[in-house]
Amino acid sequence: MDNKNSYEFELERIKKLIKERGAIRVGLQLPDGLKTRSTDIALEISKDTGVEVIISGNSCYGACDVDKQLEKVVDLLFHFGHTDIFSFKKRKTVVKEKIVFIELRSGVDIKPAVEKAVVQIEGEAVGLTATVQHVHTLKEAKILLARYGKKAVIGKSRLKYDGQVLGCDFSAAMVPCDEILFIGSGGFHPAGLALYTGKRVIAADPFNKQICVYEAEEERKKRYIAIARALDAKSFGIIVGMKSGQFNLNEAISLRRKAIEKGLNAYLIAMDEIREDKLLGFDVDAFVNTACPRLAEDFVHFVKPVISAMEFEVVLGERRWEDIFNLSSFWWLAE
Amino acid sequence: MDNKNSYEFELERIKKLIKERGAIRVGLQLPDGLKTRSTDIALEISKDTGVEVIISGNSCYGACDVDKQLEKVVDLLFHFGHTDIFSFKKRKTVVKEKIVFIELRSGVDIKPAVEKAVVQIEGEAVGLTATVQHVHTLKEAKILLARYGKKAVIGKSRLKYDGQVLGCDFSAAMVPCDEILFIGSGGFHPAGLALYTGKRVIAADPFNKQICVYEAEEERKKRYIAIARALDAKSFGIIVGMKSGQFNLNEAISLRRKAIEKGLNAYLIAMDEIREDKLLGFDVDAFVNTACPRLAEDFVHFVKPVISAMEFEVVLGERRWEDIFNLSSFWWLAE
Repeated sequence: MDNKNSYEFELERIKKLIKERGAIRVGLQLPDGLKTRSTDIALEISKDTGVEVIISGNSCYGACDVDKQLEKVVDLLFHFGHTDIFSFKKRKTVVKEKIVFIELRSGVDIKPAVEKAVVQIEGEAVGLTATVQHVHTLKEAKILLARYGKKAVIGKSRLKYDGQVLGCDFSAAMVPCDEILFIGSGGFHPAGLALYTGKRVIAADPFNKQICVYEAEEERKKRYIAIARALDAKSFGIIVGMKSGQFNLNEAISLRRKAIEKGLNAYLIAMDEIREDKLLGFDVDAFVNTACPRLAEDFVHFVKPVISAMEFEVVLGERRWEDIFNLSSFWWLAE
Repeated sequence: MDNKNSYEFELERIKKLIKERGAIRVGLQLPDGLKTRSTDIALEISKDTGVEVIISGNSCYGACDVDKQLEKVVDLLFHFGHTDIFSFKKRKTVVKEKIVFIELRSGVDIKPAVEKAVVQIEGEAVGLTATVQHVHTLKEAKILLARYGKKAVIGKSRLKYDGQVLGCDFSAAMVPCDEILFIGSGGFHPAGLALYTGKRVIAADPFNKQICVYEAEEERKKRYIAIARALDAKSFGIIVGMKSGQFNLNEAISLRRKAIEKGLNAYLIAMDEIREDKLLGFDVDAFVNTACPRLAEDFVHFVKPVISAMEFEVVLGERRWEDIFNLSSFWWLAE
């Protein structure tokens, strides 16, 4: 495993843990993009420890998406790419000792991407954020930015590390600043940062050195359009997520009752992985998603509107449009 | 619900059961093609009994595919379209009283389809088979065929009804006959009948009155091609199905060990719903499926060969090619 341009898979720690615990059967859960590495990891682990390895072929979108079925049949489950979220309500039901989170720290040099990003920064003060893979580089980024006359702030977060963000927790970005610099890959985190902080976000990908800018108003406009489309709906499917950390049946039941009171039809629909083709079969006008609060954003091009629980409260006339983005994290992290 | 051209959803029985059991929350699980009806059913049930209804948005391919997660949070789970299979090994783990199977008998007239099928029947003796939706019409079909000089046999099956077939149980077709007439929709059952009986199968769909003919050799040729493609593979992903009645970890472990002994690389991959896009991420040459034994047939156009457990034994040199189709049903029904 090459740490410099890849991730730290911590295979020595994994093998040590397997031996210490006397595990006979272990599970591996990796995000889709890294599943290609799973067979090499399985081979090395089983050769060196004699353990039977089962790789999860299911999705792995976050610490909210632990493979519970696999967990039942293994002695240890190594979940790659995410940090344990201790305040996660549903995590309480999980036998903690069985699940080991491997954070996949990256050794990639952030300097080229950060220096490229500087040109895009318009203000003086910058909020610094990153996924767990790059969060250890934020101090280096702060020093780099200072050289260019930018004052960088690494915010405290509710998560494991300062400056760390999740798709559903941006508490680290709630600092006095003009813009936000995000270090990491993909659009999921920076789009959410723009949406929920209302600030301009510069995303710097240290792997491909690409810089992308996310404007808060553009991100919010997409959500306003989705809400507007849902205003005409007479029947709603209220999606209940069945993944380990996305299950919120009480909220779904409560939303359904509110909808019925307003004269709308509403149905509870329980799903594990929420995909467009699965929704197509249902005879409703729109969907409300109570699972991952960010999931609705993936459905902007879907034939029927899909909105979040809070956006549905706007449709029901119980919340103001402008109030839905005034939070740094969602209910399950709040406790 | 119109029984004549649709299915019998047994809503009166469902409502009676809800009241008798004092259920507060019930689940509905319907095959994908009937999910469009689920909201109407939910509406009627909740209006008449006051119960909270949760519809499953997950797959529902058979009695082997009970939504276990949904089952946990409801008092009763109504599973539509399949019969309870009492000899199903995994069904033992299910709290039986919670799951109610609604067979979805159809009231559609089979006469036009059967009369259209007669022209295609070449021999004298015909084995009569159907899915549970039409199995009650087989006696009528037998009388109809007699008028055309055809001797029809309705075979005993290991399942609930004589003449009934599943995708993984063709015991009802193991009768002395020249050809087999199948009454039902879709290609899954007739293709399997041809594959495992070695006989010509005439499929008559009573809904659209379409007649399709399945030749055993054509079906078998597809499987031989898949096996031949897998012969060159050096690494195999052994898929472990995590659905309620498709879990067979012991077989997967045993196949993996045999593969390792032959100098091949093999990895256990656990999955709930087995889809092509989920397999694409894994760095192996071919896959062996230990979940639904018929599933491999859905992957004939996939970039990598996907074969069944028995077909893998041919690849390993432990079974003869010609022996894999000599059975009427698969291990879990054998007991």
